[in-house]
Amino acid sequence: MTEYAKTAEGFSCPAPLPSTDRVLLGHGSGGKLSAELIREIFLPAFSNPVLERLDDQAIVDVGGSRLAFTTDSFVVKPLFFPGGDIGSLAVHGTINDLAMGGARPLVMSAAFIIEEGLPMQTLRQVVNSLRRAADRAGVSIVTGDTKVVEKGSADGLFINTSGIGRVRQGVALSADRAEPGDTILLSGSLGDHGIAILAHREGIEFETTIESDSAPLDSMVEALLDTGAAFHCFRDPTRGGLSSTLNEIAAQSGVQIELDDRTIPVREQVRAACEMLGLDPLYVANEGKMVAFVEASGAERALRAMRDHPLGHEAHIIGTVTRRDGPLVTLRTAFGTTRVVDMLAGDQLPRIC
Amino acid sequence: MTEYAKTAEGFSCPAPLPSTDRVLLGHGSGGKLSAELIREIFLPAFSNPVLERLDDQAIVDVGGSRLAFTTDSFVVKPLFFPGGDIGSLAVHGTINDLAMGGARPLVMSAAFIIEEGLPMQTLRQVVNSLRRAADRAGVSIVTGDTKVVEKGSADGLFINTSGIGRVRQGVALSADRAEPGDTILLSGSLGDHGIAILAHREGIEFETTIESDSAPLDSMVEALLDTGAAFHCFRDPTRGGLSSTLNEIAAQSGVQIELDDRTIPVREQVRAACEMLGLDPLYVANEGKMVAFVEASGAERALRAMRDHPLGHEAHIIGTVTRRDGPLVTLRTAFGTTRVVDMLAGDQLPRIC
Repeated sequence: MTEYAKTAEGFSCPAPLPSTDRVLLGHGSGGKLSAELIREIFLPAFSNPVLERLDDQAIVDVGGSRLAFTTDSFVVKPLFFPGGDIGSLAVHGTINDLAMGGARPLVMSAAFIIEEGLPMQTLRQVVNSLRRAADRAGVSIVTGDTKVVEKGSADGLFINTSGIGRVRQGVALSADRAEPGDTILLSGSLGDHGIAILAHREGIEFETTIESDSAPLDSMVEALLDTGAAFHCFRDPTRGGLSSTLNEIAAQSGVQIELDDRTIPVREQVRAACEMLGLDPLYVANEGKMVAFVEASGAERALRAMRDHPLGHEAHIIGTVTRRDGPLVTLRTAFGTTRVVDMLAGDQLPRIC
Repeated sequence: MTEYAKTAEGFSCPAPLPSTDRVLLGHGSGGKLSAELIREIFLPAFSNPVLERLDDQAIVDVGGSRLAFTTDSFVVKPLFFPGGDIGSLAVHGTINDLAMGGARPLVMSAAFIIEEGLPMQTLRQVVNSLRRAADRAGVSIVTGDTKVVEKGSADGLFINTSGIGRVRQGVALSADRAEPGDTILLSGSLGDHGIAILAHREGIEFETTIESDSAPLDSMVEALLDTGAAFHCFRDPTRGGLSSTLNEIAAQSGVQIELDDRTIPVREQVRAACEMLGLDPLYVANEGKMVAFVEASGAERALRAMRDHPLGHEAHIIGTVTRRDGPLVTLRTAFGTTRVVDMLAGDQLPRIC
């Protein structure tokens, strides 16, 4: 999940953001408005060195162990969608936030805010799905909480999961550690989750159903770290999509990123849906993909490890890191031209996670 | 917070609970319906030895350290009330859950679900209050999350806080460790939080404003443990009140509890408000009180430590633990009669935390 992400310093912003005295849907988008909210309200209040790392997980030392700690609330609509539901998504989201810090997930919490009148059967289905997802990842739900609010005061069911993991020895991954010369890997095709939710929600039908890619990435991270390649940063491009994730990393590391459009995998059907809906796959959320920044010498080894993993058959090298010399993220197109890839502005798809 | 609380085995239940195929407000009350929901849906799904302890925090071993881990969502209505707000409450609730396990709070997460249209100024006020409460307790907010849902899909603002603490060496506190012969201490007067919220919400005015007792109990726990007395269980009587908390402990420990009504402190104004509203202070929520079960030999020492603490001046010994020989919890009244104190049935005060 993209959270507490710093606004990229110095990226081009063609139109000024709407200044507002009320919270807008776009403030939850993972894009520029989210960054503004974090910069103006959350960071000044909670200022501390761990939070200011602005990664998807906090790394804290406890009794000689390096622990990763993360939290995410899930408000996805609808609760059930092709490829998953709010229960499995809540597990995968938190596991992935831990894994992106190089941590092995250990335990999780699950807290439910339920709207009065929710069918028991719906709750049971979600809880069972959540349990199955946790079981598959070998993570126990060790603590929880339940609140019920009056009909009309919530939308069915919201879930918060928090998680604790243990960071692998010698591993130091962070959004501020990307370096010129790094190779950027992407573990698979873009946009499946966002398009699956949107299509299902709007009742749009395609020849075959587009399914969410929601999946736990912890075992892929293990396989990558086992290669011994020099990794600098892992991140799962969720809200705000790949473009927002890469803008954040480039800004925090003080580098520039050059992508090659020809190597970024997007399923034909997702591409068609995006064209129909006026969306750019680079901005659509994923829930089972990761980017890895690795020293060039280890890039081929890392790519093989990704492709050998069941969730990484479509992995590609999608770009490289250079010294800052212009916009944060640029994309070389199939036509040989170059365009700037900015952070998501406004709100593309509300409540996709 | 009362969470995942087991239904008392064998307590008397005069009327059968309403069987329902939908979630009711009472399922979030911390009483019998909450226990039913946990027993029928959450426990079967998440079954594991840590969760089955059914305490307000999980204790897990990580790299040789005993960590306490807890989560709570806050849906209190209104967001601001005499004596606190959703921000300070969210910090105190999680700190207290950790403290009740004998853990020193280390780090916390804060996750916000915001209804579109919430005034920025409201969010800013809550976030600043949350920060001040965390600062006072010496706890850092190290990770967070923000989601925004459409107008009408939530009620202003919900907050989840999760926390990690380190359990003090040699300490083993749990709701299943109360023993016949234990003395029961209560750190102060009952009902302030629930009545403050209710009065404020319903616009009921008393001569002076009743304020919530919302406060962090970690330093009181430290002071108690420093006495070296043999403590068996700490618990903060939140949702469902003292009666539900004691029923849970009695059930889980397989013991019986005898209370002395004459020593249970209730402020005159809270008692008057309860009479007016038809409420029993034993069932009203508290957010800055604790009960301690201690071996009789250490009871006086423990009581002195409580009374020496700024939050414990009104502490009293309120009862004793005996062998199970009847109802789980009984109360000797000022008239010399004895009555059964059952768990909260139904929903007394929704959304008080």
